[in-house]
Amino acid sequence: MNVGIVGGGQLARMLALAGYPLGLRFQVLDPAADACTGQVAPLIQGDYDDVALLERLADWAEVVTFDFENIPVAAAQAIAGQVAFYPPAEALATAQDRLSEKTLFWELDIPTPNFATVDSLDELKDAVARVNLPAVLKTRRLGYDGKGQRVLRTSEDIQPSWQALGGVPLILESFVPFEREVSVLGVRCRDGATAFYPLVENHHRDGILRLSRAPCFMPDLERESWDYARRLLDRLNYVGLLAIEFFVKNGRLIANEMAPRVHNSGHWTIEGAETSQFENHLRAISGLPLGSTRAIGHSVMLNCIGDLPERTAVLAVPNTHYHIYGKAPRLGRKVGHMTLRGDDPGTVSDHLRRLLPLVGFDPDEFG
Amino acid sequence: MNVGIVGGGQLARMLALAGYPLGLRFQVLDPAADACTGQVAPLIQGDYDDVALLERLADWAEVVTFDFENIPVAAAQAIAGQVAFYPPAEALATAQDRLSEKTLFWELDIPTPNFATVDSLDELKDAVARVNLPAVLKTRRLGYDGKGQRVLRTSEDIQPSWQALGGVPLILESFVPFEREVSVLGVRCRDGATAFYPLVENHHRDGILRLSRAPCFMPDLERESWDYARRLLDRLNYVGLLAIEFFVKNGRLIANEMAPRVHNSGHWTIEGAETSQFENHLRAISGLPLGSTRAIGHSVMLNCIGDLPERTAVLAVPNTHYHIYGKAPRLGRKVGHMTLRGDDPGTVSDHLRRLLPLVGFDPDEFG
Repeated sequence: MNVGIVGGGQLARMLALAGYPLGLRFQVLDPAADACTGQVAPLIQGDYDDVALLERLADWAEVVTFDFENIPVAAAQAIAGQVAFYPPAEALATAQDRLSEKTLFWELDIPTPNFATVDSLDELKDAVARVNLPAVLKTRRLGYDGKGQRVLRTSEDIQPSWQALGGVPLILESFVPFEREVSVLGVRCRDGATAFYPLVENHHRDGILRLSRAPCFMPDLERESWDYARRLLDRLNYVGLLAIEFFVKNGRLIANEMAPRVHNSGHWTIEGAETSQFENHLRAISGLPLGSTRAIGHSVMLNCIGDLPERTAVLAVPNTHYHIYGKAPRLGRKVGHMTLRGDDPGTVSDHLRRLLPLVGFDPDEFG
Repeated sequence: MNVGIVGGGQLARMLALAGYPLGLRFQVLDPAADACTGQVAPLIQGDYDDVALLERLADWAEVVTFDFENIPVAAAQAIAGQVAFYPPAEALATAQDRLSEKTLFWELDIPTPNFATVDSLDELKDAVARVNLPAVLKTRRLGYDGKGQRVLRTSEDIQPSWQALGGVPLILESFVPFEREVSVLGVRCRDGATAFYPLVENHHRDGILRLSRAPCFMPDLERESWDYARRLLDRLNYVGLLAIEFFVKNGRLIANEMAPRVHNSGHWTIEGAETSQFENHLRAISGLPLGSTRAIGHSVMLNCIGDLPERTAVLAVPNTHYHIYGKAPRLGRKVGHMTLRGDDPGTVSDHLRRLLPLVGFDPDEFG
């Protein structure tokens, strides 16, 4: 079966590597000539809205998916008119706009921070009155890794925030003083079957995910997260893998955002789960039965941001699995990750203390 | 780091898929335009003894390895004169000739069947007198999957066996009425560090491996196999992964043959061990630290011979991992494998009963 992927970053690359053993073939479309998936699969270089190239990809493929949620919805709809396209364009459209996303959460009784749309300075002032401070002003579209956000702590922050972000559709969300951040990965097949991975605890720095730990053994929250994920998957008639990020406050989940694709907080599943998120996404969109989402022992995933620690140092740490994406180093760029897997959390923690300094952290950080 | 592979079959394919996450790049040389590794890495199509192509591969690569032990030793030596080539050409030469191989086992005090060389009908008669019947007459070179072999049970088999195989260098080996067949995988680094995988129990049909089970929990035999493997690795100044197949008779190991490469009886390590044989081979030849060879639970690997069972049926069996090689179906050809992994042997056995009929066996076979 031929699988086309719109986007050729590390997620597409890991999809291809997970899919080859299933007998799948891949082609990816990416604007960058050096898109890292091009090292492991044929690359069609071109813009995401190049109609001729999209047609070429859809013509070759039996199913098309994407590794990047900011591809134009019109492009997605064009492909979906020609060949099976998953996750559905509606899910893509919803996730691209924080307002649609939050509104959907709200409709499905999934708790979210309070929110209000902001299209002018006056609306921002109104929104602050309704949402209360502290709050976070965000662009409704194209935000990722903490980009396109400003925290408003006092009314003096209103004017500068508007100046920094105004001019595009915005949303003001109440700031959640969270105790922790978690995420859940759910996957749904063409026939409606679903499966859910163990709840993951995430640690961000400067808006970028740095460390994920799974399973995180919060059974009540895990059950709650699976319930919310199921509501979203069913409502969107979803096919493929969906990630949802939550804040935890007072022991309850508050949905922050969703990503209609494989997700950084699921990279641990390559070694740490019976079936990886990448394989299960491909199984789902190809109409194959889902694989077990059960964790195998305890895993910690560490992102490599900007540049890569030296291979020998990383691999010298027992039970460390290194994933290098084949991308040029660049400040703030995700260029690789490492997953520590072990049968008991104590050993994993010991090894983690050796890995953390390799990515610029204190051994006791995230302790 | 650029890795060249001479041979582009399923072993090279699985090497490439294991190596991409480590940031390695691959090119393979294979005579077949449709060599299945060509689906996942650039393929140089040409003969194994094409000097210009070998030079081109060696020029591009920082290290060259092989997935096929019958490549010409002269080609191996030519590459080794130009770039790092592992496993060493001497190991390749030894494994290509059953006489050299058995002689080395004998020198290292590794038990083997009795054997004698045979280059004429008279020598075959002498050999039968020394080795005794039953015995197996084998071509010294180019045998695999039971090809190039004849069993002699009575003196009446001497003449027809000679007629079937004579004309090339032969070896007569005493027939071992074994209780079981096992194999061990050892890996050795450039710096001499070694690691060994749990002992594997193998089941063949018509000379072709059909099922491997690991770990097989025979601690005395495992220790013995590691000891023999270490002797071979050290003596050959080996770098990379080495497989040794043994008969078990009266609770002792008798070495049958070795393969200086990743091995079919190690495919279970992809899901069933902390680090796969493919990754550890690449770590060894690239000068990286070895990964843990520990088993994770219990695994059974089943080969798909000739053609592939339908994907949906295979993946519907819980905890089954399917590996499709991208090869055209052909009688007797290895076109894929499946690995069942689980935390307890009982569950694995239950699932195995569902998989066996998909590859033409009775559910109780190999019970």
